[in-house]
Amino acid sequence: MKPRTHRRAVILSLGDELTLGQTLDTNARWISRRLVDRGILPVEHVTLPDDLDAIVRALERAARQADLIISTGGLGPTLDDLTRDALARAMGDTLVEDPASLEQIRAWFASRGRPMVGLNAVQALRPTRAAAIWNKWGTAPGLVGEIEGAMCYCLPGPPAEMTAMFAEAVEPALAPPGGIVIQTRALHTVGLGESEIATRLGALMRRDAVVLVGTTASGGIVSIRIRREGPSADEGAIDQVAAQCRDAVAGHVAWEGDPTAAQALVEALRAHGQRVGVVESCTGGLLGATITDVPGSSDVFLGGLITYANELKRSLAGVDERSLDAHGAVSAAVAQEMARGGLRAMGADHCVAVTGIAGPGGGSEAKPVGTVFVCHGRSDGLTDCRQLRLTGDRGSIRTWSVNAALSMLLFACRGEAAPGLLRQVR
Amino acid sequence: MKPRTHRRAVILSLGDELTLGQTLDTNARWISRRLVDRGILPVEHVTLPDDLDAIVRALERAARQADLIISTGGLGPTLDDLTRDALARAMGDTLVEDPASLEQIRAWFASRGRPMVGLNAVQALRPTRAAAIWNKWGTAPGLVGEIEGAMCYCLPGPPAEMTAMFAEAVEPALAPPGGIVIQTRALHTVGLGESEIATRLGALMRRDAVVLVGTTASGGIVSIRIRREGPSADEGAIDQVAAQCRDAVAGHVAWEGDPTAAQALVEALRAHGQRVGVVESCTGGLLGATITDVPGSSDVFLGGLITYANELKRSLAGVDERSLDAHGAVSAAVAQEMARGGLRAMGADHCVAVTGIAGPGGGSEAKPVGTVFVCHGRSDGLTDCRQLRLTGDRGSIRTWSVNAALSMLLFACRGEAAPGLLRQVR
Repeated sequence: MKPRTHRRAVILSLGDELTLGQTLDTNARWISRRLVDRGILPVEHVTLPDDLDAIVRALERAARQADLIISTGGLGPTLDDLTRDALARAMGDTLVEDPASLEQIRAWFASRGRPMVGLNAVQALRPTRAAAIWNKWGTAPGLVGEIEGAMCYCLPGPPAEMTAMFAEAVEPALAPPGGIVIQTRALHTVGLGESEIATRLGALMRRDAVVLVGTTASGGIVSIRIRREGPSADEGAIDQVAAQCRDAVAGHVAWEGDPTAAQALVEALRAHGQRVGVVESCTGGLLGATITDVPGSSDVFLGGLITYANELKRSLAGVDERSLDAHGAVSAAVAQEMARGGLRAMGADHCVAVTGIAGPGGGSEAKPVGTVFVCHGRSDGLTDCRQLRLTGDRGSIRTWSVNAALSMLLFACRGEAAPGLLRQVR
Repeated sequence: MKPRTHRRAVILSLGDELTLGQTLDTNARWISRRLVDRGILPVEHVTLPDDLDAIVRALERAARQADLIISTGGLGPTLDDLTRDALARAMGDTLVEDPASLEQIRAWFASRGRPMVGLNAVQALRPTRAAAIWNKWGTAPGLVGEIEGAMCYCLPGPPAEMTAMFAEAVEPALAPPGGIVIQTRALHTVGLGESEIATRLGALMRRDAVVLVGTTASGGIVSIRIRREGPSADEGAIDQVAAQCRDAVAGHVAWEGDPTAAQALVEALRAHGQRVGVVESCTGGLLGATITDVPGSSDVFLGGLITYANELKRSLAGVDERSLDAHGAVSAAVAQEMARGGLRAMGADHCVAVTGIAGPGGGSEAKPVGTVFVCHGRSDGLTDCRQLRLTGDRGSIRTWSVNAALSMLLFACRGEAAPGLLRQVR
């Protein structure tokens, strides 16, 4: 197929389990990030059930909107896997068996000492004018074909297979627009509401500006996102806008750029040669999980204590029974003892403790659901304890608490105290 | 507005941060689950950037496809928040200020002791023929209007606000189709591949059957999803198909129904009056986080040790230094000592330990990335240790490991040993 330019992409996620809400799609987001990195703009994500007509219509519509289509899902061996048929119909084509694919599927089973089930042979079908993409990580080959001038890549749904195949077969074939560049910057702030930030940014946020500035709020972090699309890179233009934004929210920027809070934290700890441990109650391991989601976090993350039951707050973190009796498990005193106990048990430079009421049960008049204490302790004995009064469901309260802990650590790494956090009451 | 029947829904998720892949949308999935529970079928999820024309076109297209539209996002106070304008245009209407909304926003700020920023006043705008929906959890009121006969609810993007408003204002107003019922069943299996299951299910998976059977694979769990849509509930028809599926995969069903693995585990532990602790290395807290994501998990989850660094495997879980030296941290011996150490430290009925190489670094010829040991220990000293050889990226390996641990616990709760797991090598 001849080289072409890819500028705009539509991403399709296929499967009843997605539209019925049984499974959370993470593929579209992952693909979007990779496309943006390559200067290609995702203009729409569409999620569809296992419905042949709906998938064919969506492919045809996507081909009118974009010059690149990437679908995930529907390439399995079973009768509800319709992507092969849909691609053939959208291409005005029919299916044939691809001998190389069949051989690859056979070899995949053989290498695992399992017989190939007859059903898997349908996975070797492809439209006559499409090519198969070798899946070394599973049994579902991918497909690539052309629909009314748009390149369409069909990848399997399991994220491990999809991401590996994208990196190996799709990314190298992408042809970003010559000279058209999407540049992005991001400042991630704590302690200022979205409207306060918008007021401070003022005209920088106009939708007709050359460099676009927007804000998004998520779990106590308000991110200022800066984007410029142009015929060539212009670091000066976007960096100047970024600098103006930075000035407008001085003292509130926890980290910058594409990394997540946890990625930024791992990087900052590594740069400062520091190590961290955690002591978690209401977050139940989520803070540790968030940090260790980052490759290489073992350089800076020692471990943690999940002291969910009060008896473990005593036995593992050494919290004084009298503190639990006098103040309750959700209190500044206990958070502080948890942080100090964690420092003792792990020998870290930093330890963050989180204790709170994530709900829906367990609240009281004095300590309603959403009452959370986050305490940062340093190896020199200093502690910084914040009380938050959060709203929302259990998941939101836990995520917000984790973000508060990560933010405090990010400032602490740089030797700064975090500003007052959003929803902080003390 | 007059009552009507809601049968098919389109869900829109709005925001540059979503199409650019900066944020993962979880709203569409959450809403889908709630609609399915009410007998309404989500037929498409669409994610769009902050682009007025694109949003208006999507609203108009959704109104032709469905009788219910639910959008999230784009109701903030800033210039990139375009949902109000898009709804007005799709309705052929103009915007007016809603005095009650303005008052509610003012009160929201006042109750927090903060002045209302002038910018927030735009959040009180609504199309003249639409109604505002009170947001008690934030500053962005929702909207409800009618587009070419379809009801359109616009809710704010932050999940905490969206879910609370959905439950309070949207759900009670939904009018599921009289007598039309969507019934679902699900069997979640371990140890059988998707094609093996499809072979066993055979004709049950035909797409023209009255009761539809499909499979989805995710992180080592293959779920058999059974769905029937009809003029009235027919428990006999769907339960008969479910029973046939159950027979076909006997011995492999870890749990059934809508709950997640963690929800099913919490329920099973509670039913048996048992308590669990965890000792995590490569999952870094993710197993604990997954269990404690379930409301009420404090009844059955004691806590855990995150022994990420080897020194903590020794000091916290009591792993013998000689075992670490002789077998390495990723070994059956160490996994077993971790499980036993966790039982000692926490006094639980069950303890699961996970140690492995999540990658991308840290692999070797003998123990490549994806080598994971999951060991279940019981208070009577019995242990059951499995070695997995996983593929995929760090996130997939960690999720698969967590699912393996949860599956083993689900069988153990019932006094059964789990069957051989997918990708188990020993």
